Amino acid sequence: MKNETSQKKVRAFAPATVANVGCGFDVLGFAIHELGDFVTASLSEKPGIRIISISGDDGRLPLETEKNTAGLAAIALLKEAGKSDLGVELTIEKNMPLGSGLGSSAASSVASVVAVNHLIGSPFSKSELLPFSVDGELAASGTAHADNVAAALFGGFILVKTHLPPDVLSLQTPEKLHCTIIHPKIEIQTKNSRKILKKQVSLEKAVTQWGNVGSLIVGLYTDDYDLIGRSLHDEIIEPVRSMLIPGFKEMKSAALKAGALGCSISGSGPSLFALSTSEILAQKIGSSMGSVLDGIDLEYDLHVSKVNTEGAAVVGEL
Amino acid sequence: MKNETSQKKVRAFAPATVANVGCGFDVLGFAIHELGDFVTASLSEKPGIRIISISGDDGRLPLETEKNTAGLAAIALLKEAGKSDLGVELTIEKNMPLGSGLGSSAASSVASVVAVNHLIGSPFSKSELLPFSVDGELAASGTAHADNVAAALFGGFILVKTHLPPDVLSLQTPEKLHCTIIHPKIEIQTKNSRKILKKQVSLEKAVTQWGNVGSLIVGLYTDDYDLIGRSLHDEIIEPVRSMLIPGFKEMKSAALKAGALGCSISGSGPSLFALSTSEILAQKIGSSMGSVLDGIDLEYDLHVSKVNTEGAAVVGEL
Repeated sequence: MKNETSQKKVRAFAPATVANVGCGFDVLGFAIHELGDFVTASLSEKPGIRIISISGDDGRLPLETEKNTAGLAAIALLKEAGKSDLGVELTIEKNMPLGSGLGSSAASSVASVVAVNHLIGSPFSKSELLPFSVDGELAASGTAHADNVAAALFGGFILVKTHLPPDVLSLQTPEKLHCTIIHPKIEIQTKNSRKILKKQVSLEKAVTQWGNVGSLIVGLYTDDYDLIGRSLHDEIIEPVRSMLIPGFKEMKSAALKAGALGCSISGSGPSLFALSTSEILAQKIGSSMGSVLDGIDLEYDLHVSKVNTEGAAVVGEL
Repeated sequence: MKNETSQKKVRAFAPATVANVGCGFDVLGFAIHELGDFVTASLSEKPGIRIISISGDDGRLPLETEKNTAGLAAIALLKEAGKSDLGVELTIEKNMPLGSGLGSSAASSVASVVAVNHLIGSPFSKSELLPFSVDGELAASGTAHADNVAAALFGGFILVKTHLPPDVLSLQTPEKLHCTIIHPKIEIQTKNSRKILKKQVSLEKAVTQWGNVGSLIVGLYTDDYDLIGRSLHDEIIEPVRSMLIPGFKEMKSAALKAGALGCSISGSGPSLFALSTSEILAQKIGSSMGSVLDGIDLEYDLHVSKVNTEGAAVVGEL
């Protein structure tokens, strides 16, 4: 923690994120561009943190500071900074869908801590901000998963070695990796999609899974796109969760046929992600996946992006 | 496969290996120096492969070609080379203990294929030799695990992404890594130590395990010795198998106290390995572990070595 001059008003952005990444249930994640949340933090004469407004959520998120991940993360930060009495007003602009499996609450809580930290003179480094957002997630959802939060904060690929206390590693991210996201317009609650998972897995499948987690990471460190593709297999979570997503098998198959390195569920779904090596391929993959949902009259959003290696950032200040 | 001039007699060495490496049950392995097997392959007028002699095994290994991993691997190689009728005599010198958890049968089968391949003019590359040794292991033991075989063949750290067909990756190996091996003089059969494992594991522990496999690999690629140490945890296999090893907990604790990055069972045991960053530390760790077995009057061998990044090699020819 260090002390610097503070601002009056700071606007920060934190990106949407893909957690699990096929084989890496609860340990892997990466960030994408454009989709994500903006949080503006302003100094106020009145002590305490207040959420002034939330846009882009269709009125579904709580304005009460202590029920909102952005509010909770800011509370944790100011407490650690010894500034719990500071007056701070938060404005949240959601620029991504809720309940889509793209780390919506993580984007809010990360944008919040990045904005508030800068507002009070940046006493904390990026790494030091992580626990505040994890705390926010824990208080809001009852689970302390650092995968979306770490990917939104640091950008690029991340590995959560341990969740509590968070031991998170930023991984090397190959230059050419592009991501296609398709978001079918149905909603799955993370809590429910976690409930349907079996608590026991076969040792044999677990071995296959940790072989794939290992080889995916080797692929990232050696720019081996083919190996990344060969590693994007999940025999444990995907077979269960994909049953909640209409057209999953057909979309995955269409993505692979169109040239994707691999394709799986983003977070707890219902969004799917596919990785590829160029924007042209990523667009083509998106069209192919979209055709499947067109065929069953299910609405969807498509998004194509390079993997975002910058992560959360301050985007404006006064 | 290519054709070159052949030799009359070739001697090859393949090193002892540590499989599993703590968190990486059935997927990770590395090679060490000095301990290992020599196989000499000589051309003979009489068609077929014969094992002429085996030394260093106290008469326990079968001389019948089709019951011996070295023989079986050589048969597979000559068959693929279209030279099944060639007369080859094999001499096996074991320079490592059997049933110690150090990949004894893998060392024999790898030294055999390296020697025989060179004898017939090196038609196969190192990578192409792998399946022959895996075949040998499969025929001899009923399981096709490529971890010891791949580490003995390639040297350094290896990751077995998939066992059948083998998809094996050579990993980056940090320069300073040293290994201490302690071999308590009791014997555990791999088959038995596999039987006692539970066939189901909790999803929670499996997630911890694949987080650690991932972070160990990140540690190898970033020369992060502290991270390698933090990753050497196994919550699934070690708690069960360590019950078969007298003094395990005390030896592990002594190794860590003496400065080891981490310590676990080598393969299916009873040997333990500990990793450290210098030869001096590795020696000190060995003494500390040995003191534990001294205290319970159990005989043991100690071995200290840098991680062997060369793997199997031809060491003599006529």
